[in-house]
Amino acid sequence: MFQVNDNYQKLPGSYLFSTIAKKVNAYSDANPDKKLIRLGIGDVTQPIAPAILDALHKAVDEMGRPETFHGYAPDLGYEFLRSAIAENDYKARGCDISADEIFVSDGAKSDSGNIQEIFSVDNRIAVCDPVYPVYVDSNVMAGRTGTYDPATERWSNVIYMPCTKENGFVPEFPKETPDIIYLCLPNNPTGTTITRAQLQEWVDYANKVGAVIIYDGAYEAYISEDDVAHSIYECEGARTCAIEIKSFSKNAGFTGVRLGYTVVPKDLKCGEVSLHAMWARRHGTKFNGAPYIVQRAGEAVYSEAGKAQLKEQVAYYMRNASVIKTGLQEAGYEVFGGVNAPYIWLKTPGQMTSWEFFDYLLENANVVGTPGSGFGPSGEGYFRLTAFGAYENTLEALERIKAL
Amino acid sequence: MFQVNDNYQKLPGSYLFSTIAKKVNAYSDANPDKKLIRLGIGDVTQPIAPAILDALHKAVDEMGRPETFHGYAPDLGYEFLRSAIAENDYKARGCDISADEIFVSDGAKSDSGNIQEIFSVDNRIAVCDPVYPVYVDSNVMAGRTGTYDPATERWSNVIYMPCTKENGFVPEFPKETPDIIYLCLPNNPTGTTITRAQLQEWVDYANKVGAVIIYDGAYEAYISEDDVAHSIYECEGARTCAIEIKSFSKNAGFTGVRLGYTVVPKDLKCGEVSLHAMWARRHGTKFNGAPYIVQRAGEAVYSEAGKAQLKEQVAYYMRNASVIKTGLQEAGYEVFGGVNAPYIWLKTPGQMTSWEFFDYLLENANVVGTPGSGFGPSGEGYFRLTAFGAYENTLEALERIKAL
Repeated sequence: MFQVNDNYQKLPGSYLFSTIAKKVNAYSDANPDKKLIRLGIGDVTQPIAPAILDALHKAVDEMGRPETFHGYAPDLGYEFLRSAIAENDYKARGCDISADEIFVSDGAKSDSGNIQEIFSVDNRIAVCDPVYPVYVDSNVMAGRTGTYDPATERWSNVIYMPCTKENGFVPEFPKETPDIIYLCLPNNPTGTTITRAQLQEWVDYANKVGAVIIYDGAYEAYISEDDVAHSIYECEGARTCAIEIKSFSKNAGFTGVRLGYTVVPKDLKCGEVSLHAMWARRHGTKFNGAPYIVQRAGEAVYSEAGKAQLKEQVAYYMRNASVIKTGLQEAGYEVFGGVNAPYIWLKTPGQMTSWEFFDYLLENANVVGTPGSGFGPSGEGYFRLTAFGAYENTLEALERIKAL
Repeated sequence: MFQVNDNYQKLPGSYLFSTIAKKVNAYSDANPDKKLIRLGIGDVTQPIAPAILDALHKAVDEMGRPETFHGYAPDLGYEFLRSAIAENDYKARGCDISADEIFVSDGAKSDSGNIQEIFSVDNRIAVCDPVYPVYVDSNVMAGRTGTYDPATERWSNVIYMPCTKENGFVPEFPKETPDIIYLCLPNNPTGTTITRAQLQEWVDYANKVGAVIIYDGAYEAYISEDDVAHSIYECEGARTCAIEIKSFSKNAGFTGVRLGYTVVPKDLKCGEVSLHAMWARRHGTKFNGAPYIVQRAGEAVYSEAGKAQLKEQVAYYMRNASVIKTGLQEAGYEVFGGVNAPYIWLKTPGQMTSWEFFDYLLENANVVGTPGSGFGPSGEGYFRLTAFGAYENTLEALERIKAL
């Protein structure tokens, strides 16, 4: 008789955003006249930029002619895209990353979830708390996290690095030594980040203790301050300890287009074993490439026109971030993030829990946000709003919140 | 100090098609004047059909307008596509599968590789031999296959079901009881299949011994005989023992477009645990949906125009299959498959091994095929040619082979 992977049964409840969707749908069904404004999930709302649409149409046309039709893509991505990434995201910033260290994928979420596969099940992970749920959940499914204690909302074999207003949302080196350290900077969900000098300390720490940093740079495009690193490879020594995961979802609006990439430097080794070779093997065995038309769209992100149009798109969302941040401050909230990231992290008023504030905002302002506790126990008492809405809706949401 | 997943180190050599690509590139570099004809990898060559191109362009346009822009897709796929699949691939054939039992993905290879994750690492798999390498390799990576014996080319904990001309390429119930049974019908690589009545026996067997059948139906569109099942759910009892994986790659030429789906019936359970819920959880955690534009392309596959155009495309490839089959027979080869599948499986002449015949054909006819031994030990002495080439090239390849 077949048996299932019992680790799945350890997962408490369902995926955070599914839970929110169900709650919102229930409210919406019961109150069909209310106009909800969704500033919850980090999904973009601006249409795909013209330069990218052109590339998509052109690639579709190519697929319709025998002489330009493209079948199976190279496992690791088309050279035209990998070169554009290497040139623009790395060489232009002085980072020593070559095209053949870049693995193109269908998105950063897939890569974030799958990357743990190439590590031993005995390895111990460290995560910031609060944290993007995928890092922990994918390790639960693999059996790496021990047992869950509902009282503390913590896994026995996960090292938590609290990021709260008390430490300025800067994770501290943990007391116990981790094998794998997840860092998402600028951070989802808090919208905060750390300086290049602070990141360098993490790279030094990882090299010292023999840990790998899984560096999620999905929000890199939103960095506005000079002393914040756009890539972990700006830090000396990162080639021997860091894997970087990047997304096209937030800088180019590809949440529904699906494209991302992961960098595994060839210097990253466990003894003689190359992690680059392992990830290549995984890609070759369990993945069959991102769509040709989508990879052409990715290439257009790096064209002159694409860059200019996306700069405007990022500015659009960051104007929203400013509206939210200023509006909340005017309303008397304590607010974090929103400077180098499209997320605003607020302290819930009084003794309200995160879910209480979720219900309060949903019912009284018809605004959907994300409860901080959904991202981990140290997120309790916080709440996330995203800058990815339409400008007009964001203005209205803040007017409603200020009127409460 | 972090450690890697040691199971990866057990994998012998590299992925079959990467090895072939390297060999072919080396030959090509050394002989730039030779015109190679590639009938090796199962990659399509016909352009995307007009009805599907129209859907792609239309969906791209939608992505460019705020009011029709699509961000994150529903985890499990858009309702419009899941309904079209349920209606056309299941209800129209009398199969009791509903839209919410269908999980849309980026392709059958990803699903084939990932599906093992929801099963216990202690489960024992059974595979046909020869077999599509992904089934075994993904289980090796998970630590489910024991140790590899290079002498027999077999894994100690895998149950092999030889499919050779001696048993008419029909797998027999294994002596040891498996937990998970991989069946790909019509078969890759042999191009053969079994009857609906024979498949019913497998469903009955799986239900009796408590095994799950992972049914890969990627080549379903090529079935020409009436007594062959288009879906395992045509068999009674399949809802309690079978997962079906389907691809748009071969019926619609989507190898570079990337779309597939997996059916997990809600009746498939291990005790109280629903495999449907587990696969939903995996999708929600480690995947973020197939691109909107690609899902619209998938919908167009089921339009009247799409169906008509794809019927012609399948007929085009099956004419190639006939050319290959007839040509090889005229040249004195013993030939199998090619009736319900786009693959032709031939017995290598004399005492030639599969790789010797690969080199022989590459060097003397400049035709690239796939060595049968690459698909498993019982594939030794066989060789695969695919019908996915251009018609003119296929004709020329066979002229060259006949002239040897």
